[in-house]
Amino acid sequence: MHHITHRVGIHAPLAQVEQALTTIDGLAGWWTRDTQGQTGVGESITFTFRGHGGGEMGRFVMKVLPPTATQQVRWSVQAGPPEWVGTEVSFALSQQDGQTVLLFAHRDWREQVEFMAHCSMKWATFLLSLRALVEQGRGQPAPEDLKIDNWN
Amino acid sequence: MHHITHRVGIHAPLAQVEQALTTIDGLAGWWTRDTQGQTGVGESITFTFRGHGGGEMGRFVMKVLPPTATQQVRWSVQAGPPEWVGTEVSFALSQQDGQTVLLFAHRDWREQVEFMAHCSMKWATFLLSLRALVEQGRGQPAPEDLKIDNWN
Repeated sequence: MHHITHRVGIHAPLAQVEQALTTIDGLAGWWTRDTQGQTGVGESITFTFRGHGGGEMGRFVMKVLPPTATQQVRWSVQAGPPEWVGTEVSFALSQQDGQTVLLFAHRDWREQVEFMAHCSMKWATFLLSLRALVEQGRGQPAPEDLKIDNWN
Repeated sequence: MHHITHRVGIHAPLAQVEQALTTIDGLAGWWTRDTQGQTGVGESITFTFRGHGGGEMGRFVMKVLPPTATQQVRWSVQAGPPEWVGTEVSFALSQQDGQTVLLFAHRDWREQVEFMAHCSMKWATFLLSLRALVEQGRGQPAPEDLKIDNWN
């Protein structure tokens, strides 16, 4: 199995970062504006990515998993691109040196395909969007997300 | 073994991207200003990262490997942080949809440590720096690089 991992520091209290990861409004502020569902453990969140014209480009359904000792937020991918189904996304938060350090992981890709490289780069830019949301009050969620290549 | 991979599209001719990866001036324009050495196959390039005051923060020595059918630029890490020594960095370029698509890989990490997550995020931001250099004439190499967490 193959994993995408990223580490980013955010100059804000841990609870504020957690809020951006565990509320519909928070998630809609940095990943995609069209975020719907419930964020409680065992519930599902649907993330729909749309073009500027409103047309659907992609859709991910995540089931919220119970937190572990180190990972406050964990999702299991229920629906989405075939490469994503069965993978797990997690966010681990800790306070270090006056920052909230976020250790992100998108685990259990079956193959290290080129699409995984695309997603790794997109996740990095979305984590910067999350940081901007928390630190400055404004993220860059889809459809205003940074386009990084010819795939999106 | 574990790998970092990223994919980024650059709106410029392939030869221009290749130049930013195969000349000392090009590399100094997006990764670190203190880039020295020779970029021919079999030769070595030394990348030194400094703080704003000029003090050395880190140093990487890369041996330039022969290109493969798909990877135009390949480096073997000769010296640097222990986790990096023996790993391989590569850049594969192709033209697609009017862009030069860069498939980046930093392969053969022995363990998927937290430092790898940090490096994955840093590589993503340095690839955006490379894109800015090629598209707009100005990258963001160290020491002006984007600081992404409490480690750098």
